[in-house]
Amino acid sequence: SMDGAPPSASPAGLSAFVAVSQLLGLTLLATTGAWLGRYRGGVAWHSPLQFNAHPLCMVLGMVFLQGDALLVYRVFRHEAKRSTKALHALLHGLALVIALVGIIAVFESHRAKGIPDMYSLHSWCGMAAFVLYLLQWLLGCGFFLFPGASFSLRGRYKSQHIFFGVALFILSITSCLLGITEMLLFKISDSYSHFVPEGVLANTLGVMFVAFGLVVGYVVTREEWKRPPLAEELALSMDFKTLTEGESQGSSS
Amino acid sequence: SMDGAPPSASPAGLSAFVAVSQLLGLTLLATTGAWLGRYRGGVAWHSPLQFNAHPLCMVLGMVFLQGDALLVYRVFRHEAKRSTKALHALLHGLALVIALVGIIAVFESHRAKGIPDMYSLHSWCGMAAFVLYLLQWLLGCGFFLFPGASFSLRGRYKSQHIFFGVALFILSITSCLLGITEMLLFKISDSYSHFVPEGVLANTLGVMFVAFGLVVGYVVTREEWKRPPLAEELALSMDFKTLTEGESQGSSS
Repeated sequence: SMDGAPPSASPAGLSAFVAVSQLLGLTLLATTGAWLGRYRGGVAWHSPLQFNAHPLCMVLGMVFLQGDALLVYRVFRHEAKRSTKALHALLHGLALVIALVGIIAVFESHRAKGIPDMYSLHSWCGMAAFVLYLLQWLLGCGFFLFPGASFSLRGRYKSQHIFFGVALFILSITSCLLGITEMLLFKISDSYSHFVPEGVLANTLGVMFVAFGLVVGYVVTREEWKRPPLAEELALSMDFKTLTEGESQGSSS
Repeated sequence: SMDGAPPSASPAGLSAFVAVSQLLGLTLLATTGAWLGRYRGGVAWHSPLQFNAHPLCMVLGMVFLQGDALLVYRVFRHEAKRSTKALHALLHGLALVIALVGIIAVFESHRAKGIPDMYSLHSWCGMAAFVLYLLQWLLGCGFFLFPGASFSLRGRYKSQHIFFGVALFILSITSCLLGITEMLLFKISDSYSHFVPEGVLANTLGVMFVAFGLVVGYVVTREEWKRPPLAEELALSMDFKTLTEGESQGSSS
Protein backbone atom coordinates (compact mmCIF):
# COMPACT_ATOMS: atom_id res chain seq x y z
CA SER A 1 0.00 0.00 0.00
CA MET A 2 3.03 2.37 -0.01
CA ASP A 3 3.35 2.18 -3.79
CA GLY A 4 -0.10 3.12 -5.11
CA ALA A 5 -1.52 6.43 -3.79
CA PRO A 6 -0.63 9.86 -5.17
CA PRO A 7 1.64 11.66 -2.65
CA SER A 8 -0.46 14.79 -2.02
CA ALA A 9 -3.91 13.32 -1.16
CA SER A 10 -4.89 11.96 2.27
CA PRO A 11 -6.44 8.48 2.32
CA ALA A 12 -10.25 8.78 2.41
CA GLY A 13 -10.63 6.56 5.49
CA LEU A 14 -8.17 8.71 7.42
CA SER A 15 -10.13 11.94 6.84
CA ALA A 16 -13.36 10.27 7.98
CA PHE A 17 -11.76 8.92 11.17
CA VAL A 18 -10.16 12.29 11.96
CA ALA A 19 -13.54 14.02 11.45
CA VAL A 20 -15.22 11.54 13.83
CA SER A 21 -12.45 12.05 16.40
CA GLN A 22 -12.99 15.83 16.37
CA LEU A 23 -16.75 15.45 16.65
CA LEU A 24 -16.26 13.09 19.61
CA GLY A 25 -13.69 15.40 21.21
CA LEU A 26 -15.95 18.44 21.02
CA THR A 27 -18.91 16.38 22.29
CA LEU A 28 -16.75 15.27 25.22
CA LEU A 29 -16.03 18.88 26.16
CA ALA A 30 -19.67 19.91 25.72
CA THR A 31 -20.94 16.95 27.77
CA THR A 32 -18.47 17.63 30.59
CA GLY A 33 -19.60 21.27 30.59
CA ALA A 34 -23.26 20.21 30.53
CA TRP A 35 -22.76 17.85 33.49
CA LEU A 36 -21.01 20.52 35.56
CA GLY A 37 -23.44 23.24 34.52
CA ARG A 38 -26.70 21.32 34.82
CA TYR A 39 -26.01 19.15 37.89
CA ARG A 40 -22.92 20.52 39.71
CA GLY A 41 -23.64 24.25 39.90
CA GLY A 42 -21.25 25.41 37.17
CA VAL A 43 -17.62 26.51 37.33
CA ALA A 44 -16.00 29.47 39.14
CA TRP A 45 -12.46 29.95 40.41
CA HIS A 46 -12.69 31.83 43.75
CA SER A 47 -15.67 29.93 45.13
CA PRO A 48 -16.81 26.50 46.38
CA LEU A 49 -17.24 25.70 42.66
CA GLN A 50 -13.47 25.86 42.10
CA PHE A 51 -13.34 22.05 42.14
CA ASN A 52 -15.40 21.97 38.94
CA ALA A 53 -12.55 23.63 37.03
CA HIS A 54 -10.63 20.38 37.61
CA PRO A 55 -12.64 18.04 35.35
CA LEU A 56 -13.08 20.73 32.70
CA CYS A 57 -9.34 21.50 32.47
CA MET A 58 -8.31 17.84 32.56
CA VAL A 59 -10.71 16.86 29.75
CA LEU A 60 -9.60 19.83 27.62
CA GLY A 61 -5.86 19.36 28.29
CA MET A 62 -5.15 15.70 29.03
CA VAL A 63 -7.74 14.26 26.64
CA PHE A 64 -8.80 16.59 23.81
CA LEU A 65 -5.54 18.50 23.22
CA GLN A 66 -3.32 15.50 24.00
CA GLY A 67 -5.33 13.40 21.53
CA ASP A 68 -5.18 16.08 18.85
CA ALA A 69 -1.43 16.43 19.35
CA LEU A 70 -1.09 12.69 18.55
CA LEU A 71 -3.10 13.18 15.35
CA VAL A 72 -0.93 16.03 14.02
CA TYR A 73 1.41 13.77 12.02
CA ARG A 74 -1.57 12.13 10.30
CA VAL A 75 -3.59 15.30 9.64
CA PHE A 76 -0.67 17.39 8.33
CA ARG A 77 0.97 14.46 6.59
CA HIS A 78 2.33 16.47 3.66
CA GLU A 79 3.63 19.51 5.56
CA ALA A 80 7.32 19.96 6.35
CA LYS A 81 8.34 17.75 9.26
CA ARG A 82 9.83 20.64 11.25
CA SER A 83 6.50 22.59 11.34
CA THR A 84 4.51 19.44 12.17
CA LYS A 85 6.87 18.66 15.04
CA ALA A 86 6.55 22.22 16.35
CA LEU A 87 2.76 21.98 16.31
CA HIS A 88 2.91 18.56 18.05
CA ALA A 89 5.10 20.04 20.82
CA LEU A 90 2.97 23.18 21.05
CA LEU A 91 -0.34 21.30 21.49
CA HIS A 92 1.21 19.04 24.15
CA GLY A 93 2.67 22.12 25.86
CA LEU A 94 -0.73 23.83 25.87
CA ALA A 95 -2.29 20.62 27.23
CA LEU A 96 0.27 20.61 30.06
CA VAL A 97 -0.44 24.24 31.04
CA ILE A 98 -4.23 23.67 31.07
CA ALA A 99 -3.79 20.43 33.03
CA LEU A 100 -1.64 22.27 35.56
CA VAL A 101 -4.48 24.79 36.10
CA GLY A 102 -6.83 21.82 36.61
CA ILE A 103 -4.49 20.28 39.19
CA ILE A 104 -4.15 23.59 41.06
CA ALA A 105 -7.98 23.79 41.11
CA VAL A 106 -8.37 20.47 42.90
CA PHE A 107 -5.54 21.09 45.41
CA GLU A 108 -6.90 24.56 46.31
CA SER A 109 -10.44 23.23 46.55
CA HIS A 110 -9.27 20.40 48.84
CA ARG A 111 -7.43 22.90 51.06
CA ALA A 112 -10.50 25.13 51.28
CA LYS A 113 -12.70 22.17 52.30
CA GLY A 114 -10.13 20.35 54.48
CA ILE A 115 -10.07 17.25 52.26
CA PRO A 116 -6.77 15.30 52.16
CA ASP A 117 -4.88 15.13 48.84
CA MET A 118 -3.64 12.18 46.81
CA TYR A 119 -5.33 9.34 48.69
CA SER A 120 -7.42 7.86 45.87
CA LEU A 121 -6.55 5.59 42.94
CA HIS A 122 -7.85 8.38 40.66
CA SER A 123 -5.32 10.81 42.12
CA TRP A 124 -2.47 8.27 41.89
CA CYS A 125 -3.20 7.44 38.23
CA GLY A 126 -3.93 11.03 37.28
CA MET A 127 -0.81 12.44 38.95
CA ALA A 128 1.35 9.68 37.41
CA ALA A 129 -0.14 10.51 34.00
CA PHE A 130 0.58 14.23 34.45
CA VAL A 131 4.15 13.88 35.77
CA LEU A 132 5.15 11.29 33.16
CA TYR A 133 3.47 13.39 30.45
CA LEU A 134 5.58 16.40 31.48
CA LEU A 135 8.69 14.18 31.47
CA GLN A 136 7.79 12.76 28.04
CA TRP A 137 7.33 16.31 26.74
CA LEU A 138 10.74 17.41 28.06
CA LEU A 139 12.43 14.32 26.60
CA GLY A 140 10.62 14.84 23.29
CA CYS A 141 11.81 18.46 23.08
CA GLY A 142 15.35 17.40 24.00
CA PHE A 143 15.56 14.60 21.47
CA PHE A 144 13.58 15.94 18.54
CA LEU A 145 13.41 19.76 18.66
CA PHE A 146 16.84 20.84 19.83
CA PRO A 147 19.69 20.18 17.42
CA GLY A 148 21.91 18.33 19.91
CA ALA A 149 20.68 14.73 19.49
CA SER A 150 22.22 12.67 16.69
CA PHE A 151 20.15 11.19 13.88
CA SER A 152 20.71 7.64 15.13
CA LEU A 153 19.86 8.51 18.76
CA ARG A 154 16.59 10.12 17.57
CA GLY A 155 15.80 6.98 15.58
CA ARG A 156 16.30 4.75 18.59
CA TYR A 157 14.26 6.95 20.99
CA LYS A 158 11.40 7.47 18.51
CA SER A 159 9.67 4.09 19.03
CA GLN A 160 9.86 4.55 22.83
CA HIS A 161 8.41 8.06 22.49
CA ILE A 162 5.50 6.72 20.42
CA PHE A 163 4.77 3.80 22.77
CA PHE A 164 4.83 5.92 25.92
CA GLY A 165 2.91 8.70 24.17
CA VAL A 166 0.02 6.34 23.40
CA ALA A 167 0.29 4.74 26.86
CA LEU A 168 0.06 8.14 28.60
CA PHE A 169 -2.94 9.12 26.47
CA ILE A 170 -4.68 5.88 27.56
CA LEU A 171 -3.71 6.42 31.21
CA SER A 172 -5.14 9.96 31.00
CA ILE A 173 -8.47 8.64 29.71
CA THR A 174 -8.48 5.92 32.39
CA SER A 175 -7.91 8.61 35.04
CA CYS A 176 -10.94 10.52 33.70
CA LEU A 177 -13.13 7.42 33.99
CA LEU A 178 -11.92 6.95 37.59
CA GLY A 179 -12.71 10.62 38.24
CA ILE A 180 -16.26 10.22 36.88
CA THR A 181 -16.84 7.17 39.12
CA GLU A 182 -15.47 8.98 42.19
CA MET A 183 -17.58 12.08 41.57
CA LEU A 184 -20.77 10.03 41.11
CA LEU A 185 -20.15 7.99 44.27
CA PHE A 186 -19.31 11.15 46.26
CA LYS A 187 -22.32 13.13 45.03
CA ILE A 188 -25.16 10.78 44.10
CA SER A 189 -24.31 7.48 45.81
CA ASP A 190 -27.91 7.12 47.01
CA SER A 191 -29.57 7.58 43.64
CA TYR A 192 -26.89 6.34 41.19
CA SER A 193 -28.27 2.78 41.24
CA HIS A 194 -31.74 4.07 40.24
CA PHE A 195 -30.49 5.25 36.84
CA VAL A 196 -31.03 8.95 37.60
CA PRO A 197 -30.30 11.27 34.63
CA GLU A 198 -27.02 12.59 36.10
CA GLY A 199 -25.66 9.05 36.47
CA VAL A 200 -26.69 8.04 32.95
CA LEU A 201 -25.21 11.27 31.53
CA ALA A 202 -21.89 10.75 33.33
CA ASN A 203 -21.74 7.07 32.31
CA THR A 204 -22.38 8.11 28.71
CA LEU A 205 -19.57 10.65 29.03
CA GLY A 206 -17.32 7.79 30.15
CA VAL A 207 -18.28 5.72 27.10
CA MET A 208 -17.49 8.71 24.88
CA PHE A 209 -14.01 8.93 26.46
CA VAL A 210 -13.46 5.29 25.51
CA ALA A 211 -14.72 5.97 21.96
CA PHE A 212 -12.42 9.00 21.58
CA GLY A 213 -9.47 6.89 22.75
CA LEU A 214 -10.38 4.09 20.34
CA VAL A 215 -10.67 6.39 17.31
CA VAL A 216 -7.45 8.31 18.04
CA GLY A 217 -5.65 5.04 18.87
CA TYR A 218 -6.88 3.47 15.63
CA VAL A 219 -5.72 6.41 13.51
CA VAL A 220 -2.23 6.59 15.01
CA THR A 221 -1.58 2.83 14.83
CA ARG A 222 -2.58 2.26 11.15
CA GLU A 223 0.65 1.46 9.31
CA GLU A 224 -0.83 2.65 6.00
CA TRP A 225 -1.84 6.05 7.44
CA LYS A 226 1.63 6.92 8.72
CA ARG A 227 3.13 10.14 7.49
CA PRO A 228 5.10 9.36 4.31
CA PRO A 229 8.58 10.94 4.32
CA LEU A 230 8.96 13.91 1.95
CA ALA A 231 11.37 13.49 -0.97
CA GLU A 232 14.10 15.58 0.71
CA GLU A 233 13.78 13.71 4.03
CA LEU A 234 14.14 10.42 2.18
CA ALA A 235 17.28 11.67 0.43
CA LEU A 236 18.73 12.84 3.75
CA SER A 237 18.05 9.54 5.47
CA MET A 238 19.57 7.65 2.51
CA ASP A 239 22.73 9.77 2.77
CA PHE A 240 22.80 9.12 6.48
CA LYS A 241 22.36 5.38 5.97
CA THR A 242 25.25 5.25 3.52
CA LEU A 243 27.47 7.28 5.85
CA THR A 244 26.81 5.15 8.93
CA GLU A 245 26.37 1.70 7.42
CA GLY A 246 29.58 0.44 9.03
CA GLU A 247 28.62 1.78 12.47
CA SER A 248 25.03 0.53 12.59
CA GLN A 249 25.76 -3.05 11.47
CA GLY A 250 26.95 -4.11 14.92
CA SER A 251 24.52 -2.19 17.11
CA SER A 252 21.20 -3.32 15.60
CA SER A 253 18.93 -6.05 17.08
CA SER B 1 17.09 -5.82 12.64
CA MET B 2 15.55 -8.67 10.59
CA ASP B 3 18.90 -9.62 9.10
CA GLY B 4 21.20 -10.14 12.08
CA ALA B 5 19.93 -12.54 14.82
CA PRO B 6 20.18 -16.33 14.64
CA PRO B 7 16.68 -17.76 14.00
CA SER B 8 16.31 -20.07 17.01
CA ALA B 9 17.19 -17.78 19.98
CA SER B 10 14.76 -15.31 21.58
CA PRO B 11 16.01 -11.72 21.98
CA ALA B 12 17.39 -11.23 25.50
CA GLY B 13 15.23 -8.18 26.21
CA LEU B 14 12.08 -10.07 25.27
CA SER B 15 12.74 -12.87 27.81
CA ALA B 16 13.33 -10.34 30.58
CA PHE B 17 10.12 -8.45 29.80
CA VAL B 18 8.09 -11.67 29.62
CA ALA B 19 9.54 -12.77 32.99
CA VAL B 20 8.57 -9.40 34.54
CA SER B 21 5.06 -9.67 33.07
CA GLN B 22 4.54 -13.10 34.65
CA LEU B 23 5.86 -11.91 38.01
CA LEU B 24 3.49 -8.93 37.85
CA GLY B 25 0.57 -11.12 36.76
CA LEU B 26 1.02 -13.55 39.63
CA THR B 27 1.48 -10.66 42.08
CA LEU B 28 -1.79 -9.18 40.79
CA LEU B 29 -3.64 -12.40 41.53
CA ALA B 30 -2.02 -12.77 44.95
CA THR B 31 -2.75 -9.15 45.89
CA THR B 32 -6.39 -9.44 44.80
CA GLY B 33 -6.68 -12.60 46.91
CA ALA B 34 -4.96 -10.91 49.84
CA TRP B 35 -7.32 -7.91 49.68
CA LEU B 36 -10.43 -10.13 49.59
CA GLY B 37 -9.08 -12.51 52.24
CA ARG B 38 -7.65 -9.98 54.67
CA TYR B 39 -10.24 -7.17 54.41
CA ARG B 40 -13.36 -8.52 52.66
CA GLY B 41 -14.03 -11.80 54.47
CA GLY B 42 -12.74 -14.17 51.77
CA VAL B 43 -14.56 -15.87 48.91
CA ALA B 44 -17.41 -18.43 48.97
CA TRP B 45 -20.06 -19.21 46.33
CA HIS B 46 -23.33 -19.90 48.20
CA SER B 47 -22.99 -17.13 50.76
CA PRO B 48 -22.98 -13.34 51.16
CA LEU B 49 -19.32 -13.61 50.09
CA GLN B 50 -20.34 -14.67 46.57
CA PHE B 51 -19.65 -11.14 45.33
CA ASN B 52 -15.96 -11.60 46.09
CA ALA B 53 -15.73 -14.30 43.41
CA HIS B 54 -16.34 -11.48 40.92
CA PRO B 55 -13.05 -9.57 41.26
CA LEU B 56 -11.04 -12.79 41.60
CA CYS B 57 -12.47 -14.32 38.39
CA MET B 58 -12.23 -11.08 36.40
CA VAL B 59 -8.57 -10.54 37.34
CA LEU B 60 -7.69 -14.16 36.52
CA GLY B 61 -9.67 -14.27 33.27
CA MET B 62 -9.89 -10.77 31.77
CA VAL B 63 -6.42 -9.62 32.88
CA PHE B 64 -3.93 -12.42 33.60
CA LEU B 65 -5.09 -15.04 31.04
CA GLN B 66 -6.06 -12.45 28.42
CA GLY B 67 -2.64 -10.83 28.79
CA ASP B 68 -0.83 -14.17 28.57
CA ALA B 69 -2.84 -15.09 25.46
CA LEU B 70 -1.50 -11.91 23.80
CA LEU B 71 2.07 -12.92 24.68
CA VAL B 72 1.83 -16.41 23.16
CA TYR B 73 3.15 -15.37 19.72
CA ARG B 74 6.20 -13.75 21.34
CA VAL B 75 6.96 -16.51 23.87
CA PHE B 76 6.57 -19.43 21.45
CA ARG B 77 8.05 -17.53 18.54
CA HIS B 78 9.73 -20.56 16.95
CA GLU B 79 6.91 -23.09 17.30
CA ALA B 80 4.65 -24.01 14.39
CA LYS B 81 2.09 -21.26 13.79
CA ARG B 82 -0.88 -23.68 13.96
CA SER B 83 -0.03 -24.81 17.55
CA THR B 84 0.65 -21.24 18.69
CA LYS B 85 -2.71 -20.12 17.28
CA ALA B 86 -4.47 -22.98 19.05
CA LEU B 87 -2.86 -22.01 22.38
CA HIS B 88 -3.80 -18.34 21.80
CA ALA B 89 -7.45 -19.32 21.19
CA LEU B 90 -7.45 -21.75 24.12
CA LEU B 91 -6.16 -19.20 26.64
CA HIS B 92 -8.70 -16.62 25.46
CA GLY B 93 -11.44 -19.29 25.64
CA LEU B 94 -10.44 -20.18 29.20
CA ALA B 95 -10.39 -16.47 30.08
CA LEU B 96 -13.94 -16.12 28.72
CA VAL B 97 -15.27 -19.07 30.77
CA ILE B 98 -13.68 -17.78 33.98
CA ALA B 99 -14.95 -14.25 33.29
CA LEU B 100 -18.46 -15.65 32.74
CA VAL B 101 -18.31 -17.27 36.20
CA GLY B 102 -17.24 -13.90 37.60
CA ILE B 103 -20.16 -12.14 35.91
CA ILE B 104 -22.64 -14.74 37.21
CA ALA B 105 -21.21 -14.15 40.70
CA VAL B 106 -21.99 -10.43 40.65
CA PHE B 107 -25.49 -10.83 39.13
CA GLU B 108 -26.45 -13.54 41.68
CA SER B 109 -24.99 -11.51 44.54
CA HIS B 110 -26.94 -8.42 43.41
CA ARG B 111 -30.16 -10.45 43.23
CA ALA B 112 -29.60 -11.86 46.73
CA LYS B 113 -29.04 -8.36 48.13
CA GLY B 114 -31.64 -6.51 46.03
CA ILE B 115 -29.05 -4.30 44.31
CA PRO B 116 -29.87 -3.16 40.73
CA ASP B 117 -27.63 -4.39 37.90
CA MET B 118 -25.70 -2.48 35.24
CA TYR B 119 -26.14 1.07 36.52
CA SER B 120 -22.49 2.03 37.03
CA LEU B 121 -19.75 3.10 34.61
CA HIS B 122 -17.76 0.08 35.85
CA SER B 123 -20.56 -2.26 34.79
CA TRP B 124 -20.97 -0.54 31.40
CA CYS B 125 -17.24 -0.71 30.61
CA GLY B 126 -16.83 -4.21 32.02
CA MET B 127 -19.84 -5.64 30.18
CA ALA B 128 -18.77 -3.95 26.93
CA ALA B 129 -15.29 -5.44 27.38
CA PHE B 130 -16.71 -8.94 28.00
CA VAL B 131 -19.25 -8.92 25.13
CA LEU B 132 -16.78 -7.48 22.62
CA TYR B 133 -14.10 -9.92 23.85
CA LEU B 134 -16.47 -12.84 23.17
CA LEU B 135 -17.26 -11.40 19.73
CA GLN B 136 -13.54 -10.91 18.98
CA TRP B 137 -12.90 -14.54 20.02
CA LEU B 138 -15.65 -15.85 17.73
CA LEU B 139 -14.40 -13.72 14.82
CA GLY B 140 -10.82 -14.85 15.51
CA CYS B 141 -11.84 -18.52 15.45
CA GLY B 142 -13.85 -17.97 12.27
CA PHE B 143 -11.11 -16.15 10.41
CA PHE B 144 -7.96 -17.88 11.63
CA LEU B 145 -8.77 -21.37 12.95
CA PHE B 146 -11.40 -22.71 10.57
CA PRO B 147 -10.23 -23.39 7.02
CA GLY B 148 -12.97 -21.36 5.30
CA ALA B 149 -11.40 -17.88 5.21
CA SER B 150 -9.08 -17.10 2.31
CA PHE B 151 -5.45 -16.14 2.77
CA SER B 152 -6.08 -12.56 1.63
CA LEU B 153 -9.16 -12.14 3.87
CA ARG B 154 -7.11 -13.32 6.88
CA GLY B 155 -4.39 -10.84 5.98
CA ARG B 156 -6.86 -7.96 5.86
CA TYR B 157 -8.61 -8.89 9.15
CA LYS B 158 -5.37 -9.52 11.04
CA SER B 159 -4.45 -5.88 11.74
CA GLN B 160 -8.03 -5.21 12.97
CA HIS B 161 -7.85 -8.31 15.21
CA ILE B 162 -4.57 -7.10 16.72
CA PHE B 163 -5.81 -3.51 17.28
CA PHE B 164 -9.09 -4.57 18.91
CA GLY B 165 -7.31 -7.29 20.88
CA VAL B 166 -5.00 -4.75 22.50
CA ALA B 167 -7.88 -2.27 22.93
CA LEU B 168 -10.04 -4.87 24.72
CA PHE B 169 -7.14 -5.82 26.99
CA ILE B 170 -6.77 -2.14 27.94
CA LEU B 171 -10.54 -1.75 28.45
CA SER B 172 -10.50 -4.82 30.71
CA ILE B 173 -7.76 -3.31 32.88
CA THR B 174 -9.60 0.03 32.95
CA SER B 175 -12.74 -1.80 34.12
CA CYS B 176 -10.73 -3.38 36.96
CA LEU B 177 -9.50 0.04 38.10
CA LEU B 178 -13.10 1.31 38.06
CA GLY B 179 -14.11 -1.76 40.09
CA ILE B 180 -11.41 -1.09 42.69
CA THR B 181 -12.57 2.54 43.03
CA GLU B 182 -16.22 1.50 43.36
CA MET B 183 -15.46 -1.15 45.96
CA LEU B 184 -13.36 1.26 48.06
CA LEU B 185 -16.03 3.98 47.95
CA PHE B 186 -18.78 1.46 48.81
CA LYS B 187 -16.88 -0.15 51.67
CA ILE B 188 -14.44 2.34 53.22
CA SER B 189 -15.65 5.75 52.02
CA ASP B 190 -15.24 7.17 55.54
CA SER B 191 -11.64 6.06 56.05
CA TYR B 192 -10.26 5.96 52.46
CA SER B 193 -9.04 9.57 52.66
CA HIS B 194 -7.05 8.76 55.84
CA PHE B 195 -4.71 6.41 53.94
CA VAL B 196 -5.93 3.28 55.77
CA PRO B 197 -4.02 0.08 54.83
CA GLU B 198 -6.92 -1.36 52.77
CA GLY B 199 -7.06 1.76 50.62
CA VAL B 200 -3.31 1.88 50.08
CA LEU B 201 -3.27 -1.87 49.25
CA ALA B 202 -6.10 -1.51 46.72
CA ASN B 203 -4.50 1.60 45.14
CA THR B 204 -1.23 -0.33 44.85
CA LEU B 205 -3.15 -3.17 43.19
CA GLY B 206 -4.47 -0.61 40.69
CA VAL B 207 -0.95 0.61 39.94
CA MET B 208 0.13 -3.02 39.39
CA PHE B 209 -2.70 -3.44 36.85
CA VAL B 210 -1.34 -0.43 34.96
CA ALA B 211 2.20 -1.87 35.13
CA PHE B 212 1.02 -5.28 33.84
CA GLY B 213 -0.78 -3.57 30.94
CA LEU B 214 2.31 -1.48 30.15
CA VAL B 215 4.68 -4.47 30.09
CA VAL B 216 2.36 -6.69 28.02
CA GLY B 217 1.56 -3.76 25.71
CA TYR B 218 5.27 -3.00 25.27
CA VAL B 219 6.12 -6.62 24.41
CA VAL B 220 3.35 -7.03 21.82
CA THR B 221 4.02 -3.71 20.07
CA ARG B 222 7.82 -4.06 19.57
CA GLU B 223 8.35 -4.52 15.84
CA GLU B 224 11.66 -6.34 16.42
CA TRP B 225 10.08 -8.87 18.80
CA LYS B 226 7.39 -9.99 16.39
CA ARG B 227 7.26 -13.67 15.59
CA PRO B 228 9.49 -14.27 12.56
CA PRO B 229 7.76 -16.41 9.90
CA LEU B 230 9.14 -19.96 9.64
CA ALA B 231 10.86 -20.92 6.40
CA GLU B 232 7.87 -22.91 5.12
CA GLU B 233 5.39 -20.10 5.96
CA LEU B 234 7.56 -17.64 4.05
CA ALA B 235 7.64 -19.94 1.01
CA LEU B 236 3.85 -20.34 1.16
CA SER B 237 3.22 -16.60 1.40
CA MET B 238 5.64 -15.98 -1.53
CA ASP B 239 3.76 -18.50 -3.66
CA PHE B 240 0.51 -16.81 -2.69
CA LYS B 241 1.84 -13.37 -3.55
CA THR B 242 2.91 -14.51 -6.99
CA LEU B 243 -0.45 -16.18 -7.61
CA THR B 244 -2.61 -13.21 -6.59
CA GLU B 245 -0.47 -10.27 -7.66
CA GLY B 246 -2.95 -9.25 -10.37
CA GLU B 247 -5.95 -9.43 -8.04
CA SER B 248 -4.52 -7.52 -5.07
CA GLN B 249 -3.19 -4.57 -7.08
CA GLY B 250 -6.58 -2.87 -7.36
CA SER B 251 -8.05 -3.59 -3.94
CA SER B 252 -5.26 -2.33 -1.66
CA SER B 253 -5.20 1.13 0.04
